[in-house]
Amino acid sequence: MNKHTPQSEFATPTVTTGALPSSRKVYTHPKADPSLAVPRREIDLHPSANEPPVPVYDTSGPYSDPSVEIDVEKGLARPRTAWVLERGGVEAYDGRDVKPEDNGGATGRYLAREFPIRHKPLKAVDFDPASSLERDPSRSEAERGSKHPITQYEFARAGIITKEMIYVAERENLGRQEMLEGAEERIAAGESFGAEIPAFITPEFVREEIAKGRAIIPANINHPELEPQIIGRNFLVKINANIGNSAVASSVEEEVEKMVWATRWGADNVMDLSTGRNIHNTREWIIRNSPVPIGTVPIYQALEKVNGIAEDLTWEVYRDTLIEQAEQGVDYFTIHAGVRLAYIHLTAKRVTGIVSRGGSIMAKWMLAHHTESFLYTHFEEICDIMRAYDVSFSLGDGLRPGSIADANDAAQFAELETLGELTKIAHAKGCQVMIEGPGHVPMHKIKLNMDKQLRECGEAPFYTLGPLTTDIAPGYDHITSGIGAAMIGWFGTAMLCYVTPKEHLGLPDRDDVKVGVITYRLAAHAADLAKGHPAAQVRDDALSRARFEFRWEDQFNLALDPETARDFHDQTLPKEAHKVAHFCSMCGPKFCSMKITAEVRDYAAGMSDNEKADLERQAREAEEGMREKSAEYEAMGRKLYVETD
Amino acid sequence: MNKHTPQSEFATPTVTTGALPSSRKVYTHPKADPSLAVPRREIDLHPSANEPPVPVYDTSGPYSDPSVEIDVEKGLARPRTAWVLERGGVEAYDGRDVKPEDNGGATGRYLAREFPIRHKPLKAVDFDPASSLERDPSRSEAERGSKHPITQYEFARAGIITKEMIYVAERENLGRQEMLEGAEERIAAGESFGAEIPAFITPEFVREEIAKGRAIIPANINHPELEPQIIGRNFLVKINANIGNSAVASSVEEEVEKMVWATRWGADNVMDLSTGRNIHNTREWIIRNSPVPIGTVPIYQALEKVNGIAEDLTWEVYRDTLIEQAEQGVDYFTIHAGVRLAYIHLTAKRVTGIVSRGGSIMAKWMLAHHTESFLYTHFEEICDIMRAYDVSFSLGDGLRPGSIADANDAAQFAELETLGELTKIAHAKGCQVMIEGPGHVPMHKIKLNMDKQLRECGEAPFYTLGPLTTDIAPGYDHITSGIGAAMIGWFGTAMLCYVTPKEHLGLPDRDDVKVGVITYRLAAHAADLAKGHPAAQVRDDALSRARFEFRWEDQFNLALDPETARDFHDQTLPKEAHKVAHFCSMCGPKFCSMKITAEVRDYAAGMSDNEKADLERQAREAEEGMREKSAEYEAMGRKLYVETD
Repeated sequence: MNKHTPQSEFATPTVTTGALPSSRKVYTHPKADPSLAVPRREIDLHPSANEPPVPVYDTSGPYSDPSVEIDVEKGLARPRTAWVLERGGVEAYDGRDVKPEDNGGATGRYLAREFPIRHKPLKAVDFDPASSLERDPSRSEAERGSKHPITQYEFARAGIITKEMIYVAERENLGRQEMLEGAEERIAAGESFGAEIPAFITPEFVREEIAKGRAIIPANINHPELEPQIIGRNFLVKINANIGNSAVASSVEEEVEKMVWATRWGADNVMDLSTGRNIHNTREWIIRNSPVPIGTVPIYQALEKVNGIAEDLTWEVYRDTLIEQAEQGVDYFTIHAGVRLAYIHLTAKRVTGIVSRGGSIMAKWMLAHHTESFLYTHFEEICDIMRAYDVSFSLGDGLRPGSIADANDAAQFAELETLGELTKIAHAKGCQVMIEGPGHVPMHKIKLNMDKQLRECGEAPFYTLGPLTTDIAPGYDHITSGIGAAMIGWFGTAMLCYVTPKEHLGLPDRDDVKVGVITYRLAAHAADLAKGHPAAQVRDDALSRARFEFRWEDQFNLALDPETARDFHDQTLPKEAHKVAHFCSMCGPKFCSMKITAEVRDYAAGMSDNEKADLERQAREAEEGMREKSAEYEAMGRKLYVETD
Repeated sequence: MNKHTPQSEFATPTVTTGALPSSRKVYTHPKADPSLAVPRREIDLHPSANEPPVPVYDTSGPYSDPSVEIDVEKGLARPRTAWVLERGGVEAYDGRDVKPEDNGGATGRYLAREFPIRHKPLKAVDFDPASSLERDPSRSEAERGSKHPITQYEFARAGIITKEMIYVAERENLGRQEMLEGAEERIAAGESFGAEIPAFITPEFVREEIAKGRAIIPANINHPELEPQIIGRNFLVKINANIGNSAVASSVEEEVEKMVWATRWGADNVMDLSTGRNIHNTREWIIRNSPVPIGTVPIYQALEKVNGIAEDLTWEVYRDTLIEQAEQGVDYFTIHAGVRLAYIHLTAKRVTGIVSRGGSIMAKWMLAHHTESFLYTHFEEICDIMRAYDVSFSLGDGLRPGSIADANDAAQFAELETLGELTKIAHAKGCQVMIEGPGHVPMHKIKLNMDKQLRECGEAPFYTLGPLTTDIAPGYDHITSGIGAAMIGWFGTAMLCYVTPKEHLGLPDRDDVKVGVITYRLAAHAADLAKGHPAAQVRDDALSRARFEFRWEDQFNLALDPETARDFHDQTLPKEAHKVAHFCSMCGPKFCSMKITAEVRDYAAGMSDNEKADLERQAREAEEGMREKSAEYEAMGRKLYVETD
């Protein structure tokens, strides 16, 4: 892998590029629209394997394609602008001027450089960002009927299959043109708790799932660099990586590379949770270079604009922030509109109160003003803004439990019920919606979270943070939460928000981001396997065969993290010759069970049917003899000892 | 922590000693036998917390007690010899001479130094290690009635409560003299899948569980250094760490320190899986210095004695190895007696064949000789040997799946059924028994393993390796398996065998052992929480309170791995002042949700009942308004779009 060389004397973010080991980027062209080029990764195996390459889902965008020239100063190509314009209903406009407060008032050398190119934003033609445009249900039907679909939800409801839908169908199938053999049996052998995973994904299936509100394609019309992706429980489980500078540490350059780095290892989505200064400029660099959807929590930036004083927040500042971020191309907003004034006192006796930053900011605002949250009272206007750019809702769980003690309590579930109400409104307004979930939940209380979410929110995709299954292992919370993530993913959560080893302790660095992403990739994959996803086990089987046949290089290359697998092997057996040796360091040359098994297999293959029958007869006789003895001993034992049970 | 200083010019193993941060070793004296001193660890909190110390289960033995002088050349104190002699039925004898093949024929500088002290072994008086002593059910009842109890199982069946039983009851209660408040409610709120966890552990409860075969206290009468511990699903979930040199790497010194190191971080048991040379001497050093039960797989050493050629194994070599290890004090033996000739062909179509080393050795032997396994045909003699020293059975799963593809197949379950038969015989023979389990199992197939094991093996404790829930993450298999371990622990597995990050790739080093142990400690704890163990959440709650109140030092000290938690924090905010700062690096000073929540709480506390009622009224009105609007929008939406569902 190479570090991209800076092209100017300014601080251009240096990003990681290059193919993964033994991997090629492959693009396929869906039958439904051959103009689309849908990426996947293919891992080539050693010729001795005599196996086809293993296709894997690829989140890394053009950075892992050596044939694409990367120029972070220009950003990625923007093919999706044409798709959006083609279907109409949108128009380019000048957009909002960048204000000093958008970057926290940073000036001079403290101000991060602007992204060099300014693209004109698109918006729905029927939306006026300059005026508060609450839609009026009393308007004439003719007027309402003029609404042109903008969001994927609106297109889906109108029966229209978008290019994005065709793209994600092809992507989910990993380029397969037809059903895998045995796909239906695999699905039947899994346990999907009522999900309806199809054996083969068609664009029409995608459309139906979106129309039902059971899946979303987060794809702001102003983020045309994005490779579309679908989030829903009948698709592969997705993961999100959080990045973002904070008031204390980190820089623009680091954040752009963290985004590229996270997607390289498998992040399907990235949330930019920056706080402090330079939020606007940092985000612009990230979005222009991001092949995956970018989410944010707009209240963070709004709070910066009022100098961090929650009481000073206003609907106007928040609204302006939504427009600012929607114009930039943020694909989904976390909005904590379910934190209501009446629920706050329910948290007073909690061990860890309100741990969501957004939730606590709004709680403070509500108590200071003694009035309902403006996120709740202005929810319809928020919907209008988000619809106009197809920003998806990620309805935030501002009252999620921050400890095992607070899991599944009245505050958490009161909010979840409100999120269910808000989902209906957002859908009615044409928006795509997913729902955020906890947090900290012991294993036996996880399933109830999933069941209740599906019920309250009409099967809108669930997007959970972990959950952590115990509080006693700071430093290992990627694991305490990876356990909960795998389980809730199995139960039906569509996207898992990663947790890094630094959770609760500090800001993750590059290595932490990688460990967090790999942990959540393996958790998501374990969930896909358990749900019975028809293609999930292909990679497990390929890796297991490589393991059994001592194809060490294939084993590394098929791993989620080939570098670490190779490093660990080489720490004990560094010599090149050992990469083809039929033994490994655990057992040594004379003692390898895999080697012995291969011999056993050859031997068994040479046995006649008579020999097998003979063996079975002997075995049965021996077992009968053993049973008789066991009964005798048992009878003897009963006489010998005082009985206690 | 300190490194113990070598006391001779020979290579004395250097071991890690010293208390854990802010921790004291406390010994309590059970009411039922105040002569016993049962250890636990107490973590002292900052005075500002105004909270009592938090008691935690302590596996680290005297090494973490600064008042005990450690001398690895002498080994630990041997208090339990008196307990064993006191109850009678045993005698000391000269024991077997150490033979050159016990150490793989190592000589000169290749021969590891012998442990300096040779203790005479004990055995049951009615057992003659020199002759094959198959018990004959046809002997007169009087003769059989003369059998004196030796094993914990025999004492339990005879209605006798041993010192070990009193000890483990006290230990499981963490020194509590009475039931915790709310213990029964906690148990009821958990989900234990039919386990019967008591609110308070009495010695009589321990005896009953052992007599029912539902729990074991692995405690060879020749391992008097051990601090007794109980394994069963109605007790705290235990974990095992594997250590052991191999033909390729590692030394005696490293292995002794690995044992001490593993128990320091929470390993309840250690298996010595050494192969190659010096197995005998390495094991002696380990056992003489081990405060936890030591398990082995005797077939490994037997194979070394026949130069690694499986076909050359004989019952006599194996039997001699059992006696050798029983005299040394090994507490449990993994014995793959369920791998039967008739099951071998069931593995022929597997993706990864037979991955258990013991299983594959025996398979090869059986096919070479075309006869049933000597472990199966001599099972009763094996029982007699193990009973004579109270070595517990760990009935090995030699046909466990080595990949997701092979999980829950005919070979695996055929063996499990045979293990159920063997359990009955071993019990009838007076032995303690646990059952080993897989391996590699996708999440949706885990529970069936537990249910079938409970049914087939009469609730004998289950002891599983992971299971790994996917095969695609070599380098992270502590996590792929930690997920499965937490789940199967919740379902009822009594002990979890750890997996380190090096699994499948290389031999774990010191850091890998620690990561493996911590991962499995957190998985076991997550299982205890979910089962509703009455005391498990005490530590989570203490840590969560510390987190909420910004007591950073308490948060570190309460963590499973205080060092890593502190290091991670200090990487971002190294200054001492930040340890008491009311913010952390994730959010920065203006933005902390925990801080805001504390303010919210103060505010809420000041609200009158009228104010609260007023809030609730407003909230209800707003929600009604929202529902009406949502219905209007929905009706409008139905007219606008083509319906698809």
